[in-house]
Amino acid sequence: MTIRAAVGGGPQEPAGGRGTITLVGAGLGGSLMAILLGREGYTVRGFEMRPDPRADPRAGGRSINLALSARGMHALGEAGLLDAITALAVPMRGRMIHAPSGETAFQPYGTAAWHANHSVSRADLNIALLNAAERFPNVRYSFGSKCVDVDPDTATLTLLDAATGRGTDVRSDAIIAADGAYSAVRRQLQARDRFDYRQSYLTHGYKELTIPAGADGAFRLEKNALHIWPRGGFMMIALPNIDGSFTCTLFWPFEGPNSFAALADERDVVRFFEKNFSDASPLMPDLAAEYFRNPTGSLVTISCSPWHEAGRVLLLGDACHAVVPFHGQGANAAFEDCVVLRDCLREHAADLGTAFAAFETRRKVHTDALAALSIANFEEMRDHTASRLFRARKSLEKTLHRLFPSWYVPLYMMVTFTRIPYADAVRREARQQRLVGIAAGSILLLLTLALVLCIHGGY
Amino acid sequence: MTIRAAVGGGPQEPAGGRGTITLVGAGLGGSLMAILLGREGYTVRGFEMRPDPRADPRAGGRSINLALSARGMHALGEAGLLDAITALAVPMRGRMIHAPSGETAFQPYGTAAWHANHSVSRADLNIALLNAAERFPNVRYSFGSKCVDVDPDTATLTLLDAATGRGTDVRSDAIIAADGAYSAVRRQLQARDRFDYRQSYLTHGYKELTIPAGADGAFRLEKNALHIWPRGGFMMIALPNIDGSFTCTLFWPFEGPNSFAALADERDVVRFFEKNFSDASPLMPDLAAEYFRNPTGSLVTISCSPWHEAGRVLLLGDACHAVVPFHGQGANAAFEDCVVLRDCLREHAADLGTAFAAFETRRKVHTDALAALSIANFEEMRDHTASRLFRARKSLEKTLHRLFPSWYVPLYMMVTFTRIPYADAVRREARQQRLVGIAAGSILLLLTLALVLCIHGGY
Repeated sequence: MTIRAAVGGGPQEPAGGRGTITLVGAGLGGSLMAILLGREGYTVRGFEMRPDPRADPRAGGRSINLALSARGMHALGEAGLLDAITALAVPMRGRMIHAPSGETAFQPYGTAAWHANHSVSRADLNIALLNAAERFPNVRYSFGSKCVDVDPDTATLTLLDAATGRGTDVRSDAIIAADGAYSAVRRQLQARDRFDYRQSYLTHGYKELTIPAGADGAFRLEKNALHIWPRGGFMMIALPNIDGSFTCTLFWPFEGPNSFAALADERDVVRFFEKNFSDASPLMPDLAAEYFRNPTGSLVTISCSPWHEAGRVLLLGDACHAVVPFHGQGANAAFEDCVVLRDCLREHAADLGTAFAAFETRRKVHTDALAALSIANFEEMRDHTASRLFRARKSLEKTLHRLFPSWYVPLYMMVTFTRIPYADAVRREARQQRLVGIAAGSILLLLTLALVLCIHGGY
Repeated sequence: MTIRAAVGGGPQEPAGGRGTITLVGAGLGGSLMAILLGREGYTVRGFEMRPDPRADPRAGGRSINLALSARGMHALGEAGLLDAITALAVPMRGRMIHAPSGETAFQPYGTAAWHANHSVSRADLNIALLNAAERFPNVRYSFGSKCVDVDPDTATLTLLDAATGRGTDVRSDAIIAADGAYSAVRRQLQARDRFDYRQSYLTHGYKELTIPAGADGAFRLEKNALHIWPRGGFMMIALPNIDGSFTCTLFWPFEGPNSFAALADERDVVRFFEKNFSDASPLMPDLAAEYFRNPTGSLVTISCSPWHEAGRVLLLGDACHAVVPFHGQGANAAFEDCVVLRDCLREHAADLGTAFAAFETRRKVHTDALAALSIANFEEMRDHTASRLFRARKSLEKTLHRLFPSWYVPLYMMVTFTRIPYADAVRREARQQRLVGIAAGSILLLLTLALVLCIHGGY
């Protein structure tokens, strides 16, 4: 079967009869997994707690805007959806830093034109994936079905129908759960013995706000950039949408003298934004009302093990490794999971237990590394992007990459523009730093030596 | 009110009317807390999921034998129970190391006669505490009542009665949950936003076994010692009971070639024990049957934050900081919690929210330190107690302590025989180690200097 776009056109032909998989969750990871499983010939019965997002695009709840990078785009390619999704996205080629004075400075992400993140609406992407999944005759989704119990020994999922209040048992060869950071399936596994689990929150929360498009649908800020207002300890970012608007996200502590808790009324909000985001606030006409209308979200990191049980249940994406959004890699990592799982299923088709174990072995070390990178990048974006030293270091990194492209790749570029597994990227970065240190030391030594020789020679 | 034994004698007089506290759990921490709250004059309504242990001493399930040290004994003193509990305990003054050959070597824990751990049956201790608690007219416990829901905003606990299947709501000024590592109250808090939580299991499990008393009630091993069979990667320990028997615990990996999973039948078990515990196995007549009758337990470390919510709900003991048992400090730490909480309630009687926050601030850093110490001590007991280097180091530590008793206190002694808060003990140990290093370096320098002078002087 060739890889081609599954959006538009008639139903897809599956590759041939495989087992039956129950898929929990129709979010980004779940619906992409449905497509890949559908292509492989599995019979997929999907269940989602929320209503169908195609009926109500707001049903998925508000969430941080999405940036797709190399890993995510590659996975979409494997699903035959690269062109379809690229059409929905706005490429961002670097960071636009906004100083408190309103001055801006552009920092390119990479060194080539294709070194871009793709800003896309989570709802648009989800709908495109669901449409593509349901074109497979062997993939079927039900919405408003809440997982209330899991029996790993028989791969039985107990669902509660939101509309009728009736419970149903669904039995299949295996349950794959892509039901997000607050996974109901994981909660069932967690109650069993010897399940390692951690949930850890930042003291910062986030709030989404909007910069609407101009009257003519024009972008009111530079279109092809991720905008950052770094303020030391807190920040706002803005990502472009295809309709000309920007989705802004303010990251700020929940509590304390300078925090969400400190703004009591609309006047406080306007004053805070005028003081800290002087160039953005005039572009936000609905600011104060939106601030109080939109919830303040929390930022969680989740890790657990094992991801699978008895070859019958497997966790995927945020359900087993939710990360904070500061590297823009949450959805990309979930998409990469889908491709790796498909490969593991191809290699061990006859033995789901081995396939699931191989998947965790292949992925967990890398998603653990991503969790640490994502928290580290928060500090970088919030506190360092504004500094001269930071900008000088980024310039030096890019110069080294231009001079020795195969030898030196900055960490951010490895994470964002390559598919080098996350932990390997971290290890390679440490090696690169050592080599740069040795090179700098050697150059210094040679220069000193030359100087000494010059003085000694009387020049 | 004077502090005196509450076991025996008539009902205790409370100190005067305070608020009403709902206490979840009648284990060690819960029942000691009930006594201390009862003494302070709070009205205490306690609920325990299990049946009354006084009706069925086995109802609490099997569990690792208990060693009370300074912290636990001090807390029992605060409850007026020191003499009563001492009468139930066997003092252990050191470790008896059993080599594979059957040879034994005694390593004293400290330098004084009172440097002892007190081995006591968890069931006996629990019953004594419950009896003491229920002598207070203002303390009342119900058994077979399972917590199914918690509303922190109104301090309402929803209970399910095991016998009748009926649900009841209990409302009070605050809920204190001492319901153990698998705390039902914590599970309710955990579902709320921004609750940090971690559960982490060792790959080792444990199994309890018995060395019965001799025909005449005699101890078949040295009575006043904690016995260890360190075998590198695994170990068995044995603690004395007042009836002349020993409770043995085998710590061994769950899976792998040398693990619980590797013993298939009674012949395997006998062969394994004869090979590894040659001096103990002849003392275990029921070994093979008991091995398969008793469950293999898992070993979990739990940490979470916050421990309290809205001045209405507070976690205590294992419910917020379960540790692995290798420092013998789990129950001691829970008892210490009870005393610290009582002190916080005295200092902030009018404001439970402040009292609960002060309790977490005062305790969490120390129970976190204990969690790390407990895991480190597993390696020490299992792998190092048998080595000569380890024994030499322990001897040196004790010599230093004898020479400079107020200046140098070995870490084990600080944890076990003092009430220095755990994290302070860890910091002090690091400082001591640095000073010992400096002293050793200085002595070496002086000796070298003297030697050089001697040679130079021609001697």
